[in-house]
Amino acid sequence: MKQSSLFPKTRKEAPKDAESINHKLLVRAGFMDQLMAGSWTLLPMGWKVVTKINQIIREEMNAIGAQEMLMPLLHPKEIWNETGRWDKANDIMYKLSDPRQKEYALSFTHEEIVMDLLRKNITSYKDLPVSVYHFSTKFRNELRAKSGILRGREFMMKDLYSAHTTEENLMEYYEKVKDAYSKIFRRLGFNFKVTKASGGVFTDKFTHEFQVLSDAGEDTIYWRDGDPEAINEEVLKGDKKDYKSSKAIEVGNIFPLGTWYAERMRAYFTDEDGKKKPIWFGSYGIGPTRVMGTWVEVSHDNKGIIWNKEISPFQVHLIGLSGKGEDIYEKLKNAGIDVLFDDRDVPAGQKFNDADLIGIPVRLVVSDKTGDLSAQAGEIEYKERTSDKTELLDFEEVIKKIK
Amino acid sequence: MKQSSLFPKTRKEAPKDAESINHKLLVRAGFMDQLMAGSWTLLPMGWKVVTKINQIIREEMNAIGAQEMLMPLLHPKEIWNETGRWDKANDIMYKLSDPRQKEYALSFTHEEIVMDLLRKNITSYKDLPVSVYHFSTKFRNELRAKSGILRGREFMMKDLYSAHTTEENLMEYYEKVKDAYSKIFRRLGFNFKVTKASGGVFTDKFTHEFQVLSDAGEDTIYWRDGDPEAINEEVLKGDKKDYKSSKAIEVGNIFPLGTWYAERMRAYFTDEDGKKKPIWFGSYGIGPTRVMGTWVEVSHDNKGIIWNKEISPFQVHLIGLSGKGEDIYEKLKNAGIDVLFDDRDVPAGQKFNDADLIGIPVRLVVSDKTGDLSAQAGEIEYKERTSDKTELLDFEEVIKKIK
Repeated sequence: MKQSSLFPKTRKEAPKDAESINHKLLVRAGFMDQLMAGSWTLLPMGWKVVTKINQIIREEMNAIGAQEMLMPLLHPKEIWNETGRWDKANDIMYKLSDPRQKEYALSFTHEEIVMDLLRKNITSYKDLPVSVYHFSTKFRNELRAKSGILRGREFMMKDLYSAHTTEENLMEYYEKVKDAYSKIFRRLGFNFKVTKASGGVFTDKFTHEFQVLSDAGEDTIYWRDGDPEAINEEVLKGDKKDYKSSKAIEVGNIFPLGTWYAERMRAYFTDEDGKKKPIWFGSYGIGPTRVMGTWVEVSHDNKGIIWNKEISPFQVHLIGLSGKGEDIYEKLKNAGIDVLFDDRDVPAGQKFNDADLIGIPVRLVVSDKTGDLSAQAGEIEYKERTSDKTELLDFEEVIKKIK
Repeated sequence: MKQSSLFPKTRKEAPKDAESINHKLLVRAGFMDQLMAGSWTLLPMGWKVVTKINQIIREEMNAIGAQEMLMPLLHPKEIWNETGRWDKANDIMYKLSDPRQKEYALSFTHEEIVMDLLRKNITSYKDLPVSVYHFSTKFRNELRAKSGILRGREFMMKDLYSAHTTEENLMEYYEKVKDAYSKIFRRLGFNFKVTKASGGVFTDKFTHEFQVLSDAGEDTIYWRDGDPEAINEEVLKGDKKDYKSSKAIEVGNIFPLGTWYAERMRAYFTDEDGKKKPIWFGSYGIGPTRVMGTWVEVSHDNKGIIWNKEISPFQVHLIGLSGKGEDIYEKLKNAGIDVLFDDRDVPAGQKFNDADLIGIPVRLVVSDKTGDLSAQAGEIEYKERTSDKTELLDFEEVIKKIK
């Protein structure tokens, strides 16, 4: 698309209250805007990044047989009372009542809602296993909403829920999800650790977190070289001297919840032997908006963001100087390349600074100095965001490099 | 996908409280589930339909230069107070406060939020026009949530907002959106009328509604043959005897809002002549979940739903009898066909009834009576949902018919 039409423009200054890197850079580059503390609009480029993150997650969810759907955000008090979490999770839930004094909670998670669907629709062992997921909004009344988009009061979550006849079947699927999550974070390009952790308000069993190593992290995790998994601080009591540690940002977590929810909500199935048994249950979450913020924390320099191919808002940033570039823009679009074309009437220096700030992996420059661009012999300046090296290439060479 | 894994199963009986056709059929066929009055989970097949509706809308929005983004759902009271709508729209808004007594509203629309974005990011006439949209959740405290998914307390909306330097520029874009909306409803396959209407809590100007003719409609609209637009009841005062009327369901509406919002929220730009002027503003909505419900109201028979190609959850419903069909299922998938394969171990009659209930446009049957299916000479029974005629075709003929 043409940068002259892109909403909004970049900003020279970060907001005064911005403390974290992701807050500063994502706002300056026009990816997100703060409505109030902990609440963000994903602007067009931010939404493009999150859409790409979601698509990677979706592909790996579908690959393990999970079915996408969409659940409501406003939940009746009665359903949260069935598990006792209306009171237990009181600090984190937003609650409201309507003029008829009916009470509701805003979704901070969906275990109870899925369990309600299951008890209405599962009767026999033949109806199991089931795994369903959605991309949806979560609301959590965080005491202090800080760290940019890393810790919001309203944010996006992909949550997956699975239901099984036996503990073995649940744990087999739990391992599949663990692998799928590892695949997702590898595809996203993160340096991460699968980490054994405790279950918070969700379960008293051990769970696993996916932790990206970063100075901006709030968590401390411990690992030894060669061990397949790290351990989080709450779980690793005792001596820590044999372990390495570092700050880390949690980007995903998985919970083998067992039969706790099914027992409280009377979600039973009839087994092959004719007996009624409670459904075995697991839940699994990734925060795509937090993933975007985490990427910026671990991949930036003093000029701006550095996206990778997988989640960059555009494949190519084409910079036109001296009124040039329109023909190359059309040719790139025709070749199926998603390109941001800087057609603005602003100084070259501002265009280069904005390109570094926005952080698209490949920058192309065309000007009256780069040759006769409409001819086959035309030359285009090619530069990667991670390198200082520029090359003069013809159109076909550019396409080869990009694809 | 295999029907034995599809969540949930179909139901023989509609819920006791279901009054409307869309409520009965979409629940029985497994497209949606009611959490509470006016609140629905879109189950996997329902989500597939809504995803297809959304994609058609998205393509037509992008074609008129609109940029997709995502805005928050929890809004601070202060921003709604700026236009006076905190009080004016009190009956329809869900309101809440957090433990620190800060007050919020749940999104019932987003004009104020967009206007806040604009005033933070627009300074000059050079930054306009801008048009942005999102697919997002709306909450409206309807006194009576009825008519299935046609009138929910929580529902999905695609809302588009546009900002301009002049009334002429706004009205030019308004006509573009009117055309884009007509294109969307034509692509969806509706028999609809563009209808002149009043603006409710949004504006005191005339607006336009997109009305689908249906006995299940709540609105009465009037038109004369040859007139390009119909007129709604509130606008057409005076004599109605020259007009035809009918019940209709509103599936979209567009509002030329003028400068009312910009003046109250101080959203100004500097014009070419150096003067500060208020932004001209329009908003435009389509309810994709209501579109799904409306389709079922106007396209069903006594056996079930009748989807069209454009929004059907699957392209083909393949029914395997006597354990047959696996090979054809694989061949269809390899040919890029999105197929629901009824591999269940249930009687043939139940499979046929479910196929009619679910309503996929093309039904294929393979059984030991339809020939040697793995061979080139294999034959497949082909039937369209809208016809009683069956044909025996080979695989290549089937593919030709579907594509």
